[in-house]
Amino acid sequence: MLTSSAEGVYAIAPTPFHPDGRIDEASTDRMVDFYREVGCTGITVLGIMGEAPKLEPAEALELVVRVIRRAGIPIVVGVSAPGFAAMRSLARAAMDAGAAGVMIAPQPSLRTDDQIVTYFAQAAEAIGPDVPFVLQDYPLTLGVVMTPAVIRRIVMENPSCAMLKHEDWPGLEKISTLRRFQAEGSLRPLSILCGNGALFLDFEMERGADGAMTGYAFPDMLVEVVRLSKAGARAEAHDLFDAHLPLIRYEQQQGVGLAVRKYVMMRRGILASDAQRKPGSALSATARAEVDYLLARLARADRRAALAA
Amino acid sequence: MLTSSAEGVYAIAPTPFHPDGRIDEASTDRMVDFYREVGCTGITVLGIMGEAPKLEPAEALELVVRVIRRAGIPIVVGVSAPGFAAMRSLARAAMDAGAAGVMIAPQPSLRTDDQIVTYFAQAAEAIGPDVPFVLQDYPLTLGVVMTPAVIRRIVMENPSCAMLKHEDWPGLEKISTLRRFQAEGSLRPLSILCGNGALFLDFEMERGADGAMTGYAFPDMLVEVVRLSKAGARAEAHDLFDAHLPLIRYEQQQGVGLAVRKYVMMRRGILASDAQRKPGSALSATARAEVDYLLARLARADRRAALAA
Amino acid sequence: MLTSSAEGVYAIAPTPFHPDGRIDEASTDRMVDFYREVGCTGITVLGIMGEAPKLEPAEALELVVRVIRRAGIPIVVGVSAPGFAAMRSLARAAMDAGAAGVMIAPQPSLRTDDQIVTYFAQAAEAIGPDVPFVLQDYPLTLGVVMTPAVIRRIVMENPSCAMLKHEDWPGLEKISTLRRFQAEGSLRPLSILCGNGALFLDFEMERGADGAMTGYAFPDMLVEVVRLSKAGARAEAHDLFDAHLPLIRYEQQQGVGLAVRKYVMMRRGILASDAQRKPGSALSATARAEVDYLLARLARADRRAALAA
Amino acid sequence: MLTSSAEGVYAIAPTPFHPDGRIDEASTDRMVDFYREVGCTGITVLGIMGEAPKLEPAEALELVVRVIRRAGIPIVVGVSAPGFAAMRSLARAAMDAGAAGVMIAPQPSLRTDDQIVTYFAQAAEAIGPDVPFVLQDYPLTLGVVMTPAVIRRIVMENPSCAMLKHEDWPGLEKISTLRRFQAEGSLRPLSILCGNGALFLDFEMERGADGAMTGYAFPDMLVEVVRLSKAGARAEAHDLFDAHLPLIRYEQQQGVGLAVRKYVMMRRGILASDAQRKPGSALSATARAEVDYLLARLARADRRAALAA
Repeated sequence: MLTSSAEGVYAIAPTPFHPDGRIDEASTDRMVDFYREVGCTGITVLGIMGEAPKLEPAEALELVVRVIRRAGIPIVVGVSAPGFAAMRSLARAAMDAGAAGVMIAPQPSLRTDDQIVTYFAQAAEAIGPDVPFVLQDYPLTLGVVMTPAVIRRIVMENPSCAMLKHEDWPGLEKISTLRRFQAEGSLRPLSILCGNGALFLDFEMERGADGAMTGYAFPDMLVEVVRLSKAGARAEAHDLFDAHLPLIRYEQQQGVGLAVRKYVMMRRGILASDAQRKPGSALSATARAEVDYLLARLARADRRAALAA
Repeated sequence: MLTSSAEGVYAIAPTPFHPDGRIDEASTDRMVDFYREVGCTGITVLGIMGEAPKLEPAEALELVVRVIRRAGIPIVVGVSAPGFAAMRSLARAAMDAGAAGVMIAPQPSLRTDDQIVTYFAQAAEAIGPDVPFVLQDYPLTLGVVMTPAVIRRIVMENPSCAMLKHEDWPGLEKISTLRRFQAEGSLRPLSILCGNGALFLDFEMERGADGAMTGYAFPDMLVEVVRLSKAGARAEAHDLFDAHLPLIRYEQQQGVGLAVRKYVMMRRGILASDAQRKPGSALSATARAEVDYLLARLARADRRAALAA
Repeated sequence: MLTSSAEGVYAIAPTPFHPDGRIDEASTDRMVDFYREVGCTGITVLGIMGEAPKLEPAEALELVVRVIRRAGIPIVVGVSAPGFAAMRSLARAAMDAGAAGVMIAPQPSLRTDDQIVTYFAQAAEAIGPDVPFVLQDYPLTLGVVMTPAVIRRIVMENPSCAMLKHEDWPGLEKISTLRRFQAEGSLRPLSILCGNGALFLDFEMERGADGAMTGYAFPDMLVEVVRLSKAGARAEAHDLFDAHLPLIRYEQQQGVGLAVRKYVMMRRGILASDAQRKPGSALSATARAEVDYLLARLARADRRAALAA
Repeated sequence: MLTSSAEGVYAIAPTPFHPDGRIDEASTDRMVDFYREVGCTGITVLGIMGEAPKLEPAEALELVVRVIRRAGIPIVVGVSAPGFAAMRSLARAAMDAGAAGVMIAPQPSLRTDDQIVTYFAQAAEAIGPDVPFVLQDYPLTLGVVMTPAVIRRIVMENPSCAMLKHEDWPGLEKISTLRRFQAEGSLRPLSILCGNGALFLDFEMERGADGAMTGYAFPDMLVEVVRLSKAGARAEAHDLFDAHLPLIRYEQQQGVGLAVRKYVMMRRGILASDAQRKPGSALSATARAEVDYLLARLARADRRAALAA
């Protein structure tokens, strides 16, 4: 079960599809094995990048069950929904299947502090107080802005809130403020894993994050950056991170990011295809060539680093 | 099956609940009978006012089936969803159960003309070309603005689009423009039923609307206004409409409207309870007293009109 | 100087233009005289309906000076601006010219409670603590949602906040909550004048509002409704209000409202022209005929009421 | 005068302030000299990063005049405003003072394609057809989404539109589409300079951009990347760009970016202070240390590159 001491890297998993739109189970298994083998401490499925709204409820649950059975590491299931009925159904089914917890993003229509706090109280009640949940803070996409004080209210009023998926932007000061709240005793322990495609992971770790929860196509690098950072190897962490930054930045294009991510995972042999279920977005030939170029530069940097070591 | 010649009043039905949150089937039956008996030409279920996101998929479908079996008039089913999988499932199941068509609202994130047009093309493909659909144009709530030209593109590119639920605000010129498009031959026949709680129904009819699709708690009045307006009895239509306008206006408060509507339907003996499933909004004692006052004034106006007749 | 005991009707004045775009000074004078003579207790210029962004700063100030010299009743000047420099300039100049206070709306980008509170603290500091200001709460147009608690924080932290221009929608419970705060002693005295085109003025008065600040083209009616309501003549207040509701409702169409308002004021002989400075919106011939029809019905209702009295 | 053949780097200039809030003229002069000496082909003042809303109109114009007199390279003046009166005043005054052109961003309330196109037609008419303008396309901040076809309509309908400030995100395909439009003959020549803090400048140049218009604190690097890219030195361009990417990325935090930029320019000896006029945002001590760390890493990379060369 997910607790506030969770750390490391939770990979945000895409949903692998065949070109004809069926779920690709072999790729799913390979992807899950890959995540575990490179050192991910958990996997999140059915997140915003998981094409969840394109799945039938039965399909979604089958995917969850398959991943849980295979993974051997904690699985978090995205259950955000416009209504609490669907949120509750999926959350209960996922937990029954062995999930470690669920993730909930706020509805885009929420505006005031009280509306946001009330929403999460209702969500926590809907899924049940026994289900640990991840609070997703993602204003760039969702348009809902939560201050540190609002996050504190949500965490303190809902014992089942175990983790913050931090992807405010900019968000470095927010991590510092939340950690200060804890030092002052006004906030209980809370795991903070960072999203935003890892674009600020280098400094987020230094500000007090416990790791990353994001889908960058090189989770192996994320694992290593988190390890180096926790070990105090600052320069090494930044060197490794900076070598990937051109690709991280490229992947971090809204609406294109998933296509880049799946393409790289296909290039790396993890997915058989980079297909998205309809309606999906595809990379242009030029964009594919750009990603190829970035991968080639990354490979060269890796060789240089290996020679230097 | 819903066609572009649909007219009259389609009642937007609330979902009746017991105070404990269960669906109230007896009230559902009574409500359906009431709609038919007062002259509604159709009923729309699972719309924005139908608390649809609080229903489990199975519950939603049961409600649809119950209403269809009872009604004896065409049933439209709201199938708006963040993903096409859920939209398709519900649409197909509803049609299999005997629905006349479905209603689709755009996702709030849509911005450009092309994004909106593409969305409806994908939605129409997802539900299947054999399913007649109602295009819901509701910028006040959804934040998506469709010009008349965009509506024309959607209608012309999707033969299965049978009706516009018109609730742009202001929207009178939009009706005139669409009817002008048809007169010019650039737009095929299209049923236009008006929403927005009927706040502008008097003039919408004069601009060329075919009727109303809204949930005002006196559909009997809507039926009569539509009839009078079509019969050219302008003054009578306005007199009747104006007598209801204070309540129509009161009901047209976002976030409160459904509570007002259910309360009035309870007062009228149609619903056994004005309960909403959690999380719902309730009327304050002051608000109930205000609605009571408006109902008393309305009853007095009715008596005066009867005496004058 | 504006104080928290302000009450009655503050007319939101349009800016009269000649058809060629010049400010129409004769109409301005006539309009100001009209407002005073029908019993308005104040006038607000350069509000959202005042076409303020189309005026050069020098023009705007000239208009303010002209209205102040002529009016003999308190003048509030809208000073909302994307920057505090422009806000401060206009506020100081208006006060130097004899204005009673200024009105400030929040910038649309504000989201969290703290952002809103901070914005008004900065605005109050920018214009100076000696300048009484009206807090405009208008989420429908501005997209900024203020809870009663946020309004209380702004009022309590800024002694120069004298009045709330209340136009949240729905907003009846908000008035009740603010008055309850005062009864409990947690909120100091505050004038509450209501906007939203007066669409809910009948009940707003009963909830505890001190009057109206809006631009409905029959301020004489608003004055009388406020008077009747304060005198406890409930039925008479509603009768009068309801007779105007069809037109109030028609005027309350976003983007069209100003055109309707100017047209009616022209029809009433107050303005020489209903012209807006470019870029403006004009009423279609059909819309003008609709307004004419509503005016004719209103005149008939007035005659009936006179006969009945 | 700005033409569609403009290229290279237009620096988005911050407005230098003394810590007490007065404009720092010595720093302004030094900054202007710096921009010219490192090879910028132009300077843009009073952009979104220029703290323009905090300047009195007279101050803003003085700044414009000072920069124009000193620069010896073309100056573009940001004139975006909620009203056309202020836009026109500043545009005419800036051109009279010798500006090369002006820059206009759309108002955030615009939604449909036609609304956007109409807005720019009105703006172009307001400033006069003799004033060359830059169309700013910045959806991340402004919320207005323009398709390539909408940009084409604006450019083709307004001969005075000389340049696109491209900062859609993602935006690489948009550049390719606009260049394709030109190849097909449906779009006339148009300068495309890229913003977004240069986060994608490496690939934007390869897609057909003419350069950059952004405020990254190392315009010398931008000049060199543009030069290398135009010369076909792809690897060198990326090597140089990638060395700066950690800082570019850090600067690209909304609401913090200007503070980072001014701090780096102070560290580089260009500005005497990194002060913002109130209300401004300041870097925390931790953030300053992070920027210092990035600058130290950048200096080391520069030394390595110099040794390698």
